[in-house]
Amino acid sequence: MHVRDMISTHPHVRGNTNEALIRCIEECYDCAQTCTTCADACLGEEMVAELVQCIRLNMDCADGTATGAVATRLSGSNEAVIRAMLEACSPACRLCAGECEQPAQAHHHCRICAEARWSCEDACRKATRSMAH
Amino acid sequence: MHVRDMISTHPHVRGNTNEALIRCIEECYDCAQTCTTCADACLGEEMVAELVQCIRLNMDCADGTATGAVATRLSGSNEAVIRAMLEACSPACRLCAGECEQPAQAHHHCRICAEARWSCEDACRKATRSMAH
Amino acid sequence: MHVRDMISTHPHVRGNTNEALIRCIEECYDCAQTCTTCADACLGEEMVAELVQCIRLNMDCADGTATGAVATRLSGSNEAVIRAMLEACSPACRLCAGECEQPAQAHHHCRICAEARWSCEDACRKATRSMAH
Amino acid sequence: MHVRDMISTHPHVRGNTNEALIRCIEECYDCAQTCTTCADACLGEEMVAELVQCIRLNMDCADGTATGAVATRLSGSNEAVIRAMLEACSPACRLCAGECEQPAQAHHHCRICAEARWSCEDACRKATRSMAH
Repeated sequence: MHVRDMISTHPHVRGNTNEALIRCIEECYDCAQTCTTCADACLGEEMVAELVQCIRLNMDCADGTATGAVATRLSGSNEAVIRAMLEACSPACRLCAGECEQPAQAHHHCRICAEARWSCEDACRKATRSMAH
Repeated sequence: MHVRDMISTHPHVRGNTNEALIRCIEECYDCAQTCTTCADACLGEEMVAELVQCIRLNMDCADGTATGAVATRLSGSNEAVIRAMLEACSPACRLCAGECEQPAQAHHHCRICAEARWSCEDACRKATRSMAH
Repeated sequence: MHVRDMISTHPHVRGNTNEALIRCIEECYDCAQTCTTCADACLGEEMVAELVQCIRLNMDCADGTATGAVATRLSGSNEAVIRAMLEACSPACRLCAGECEQPAQAHHHCRICAEARWSCEDACRKATRSMAH
Repeated sequence: MHVRDMISTHPHVRGNTNEALIRCIEECYDCAQTCTTCADACLGEEMVAELVQCIRLNMDCADGTATGAVATRLSGSNEAVIRAMLEACSPACRLCAGECEQPAQAHHHCRICAEARWSCEDACRKATRSMAH
């Protein structure tokens, strides 16, 4: 991805980047893709009926990546919105990770997804802290 | 829109609808469309340079409508995520409405958009309350 | 929704609205909501394993509603993109409608969704025609 | 991103990956982020009034990344929808790249964005070909 390259050339940034926010944006876009795959892979498993909650939380989490787009906009004073979106993304990731790592869910895609969700949740928390006054 | 028709036939709802949540979902989808038009209409105005903040807040607000999709999913226990998304949607609407109703912004699209944003903000708050324990 | 109100105040439209495009935009946003509900309602049905294809096509169709946002932007010369998006939305609706109306799928949400998909497909085709040279 | 890792563990893929499609999915998600930054960076430039068309095409292109989500779903027989979405994504990228590389647009973010859009357009075309019968 080109997140750092693009954001560092933004006229309101000019090289003075917030590394925590950049990592968080990367994680959010990755989250959209990972969760969309995990939901679809779960739909393809024979035991789909036992994976319903996992599919749903993956879909919520994929929608939560609107956070990545909001956090990408830096022209104006929208810190309140970015912070609120980051605070919505965290529980979505946490719930999804918790479901994906259930021992019953031996699926490889769920294990990769759980790890990626904890990483995204961590990135959201650090980005929130980096913006706190 | 078919929000009530669809949600009332959901197997986990069976007619026992939460009217505050239904209104909120309708407002969120309307918000996506209204804000996308307002941002584009502002881009088409001669005085675009003075409308930059309005355009940006409209784009954040349009992304915030991921809230509508999350609130639409009722199969699982994702109340924490719905609530967090509603709490992110409210400030996005408030900021956008405040900017759109600046007296300087005499544009008709901004005035309609401001009114619609207050209505969406109100719907989000009432939906949050309807889900509180 | 405020589609006509908003679009008719756009500086590049000024009341000279394309009614076929307005109807199509309304249908696309409705489509996003209807398909998201139908996918989630299917996930909540006991026979979920038989509804996998319906869930998937609903999710594709919900994503296809990016068409609504693209068709909402009228400031610039993006007719080629609008037309291509409309041509992608049509088969998504057609496939989804066809699956939702399978006789086996006696679910009420699938029946409402199928009807709404045919209506959206019709709106996309008419909007395409309204833009043809 | 985890695109290859996730898709190769999908029960309908099982390691038998389509490399052209994987690259295309990565490009589409990158496209969403790059175009969102470029639109916002253009909004932050003093000469914003001259960048209106660039901003709009970037927003269309960012919406076009719904293609990435559709192409990520492989459980069912939705090749027709994937193909149609790829064919909508290509002109969106082409138009956006053409605008971003105008000599007048000396902004660094536009130059990076133009290069990324040509790369995404190429990936979409190759993915289409990889799926052709």
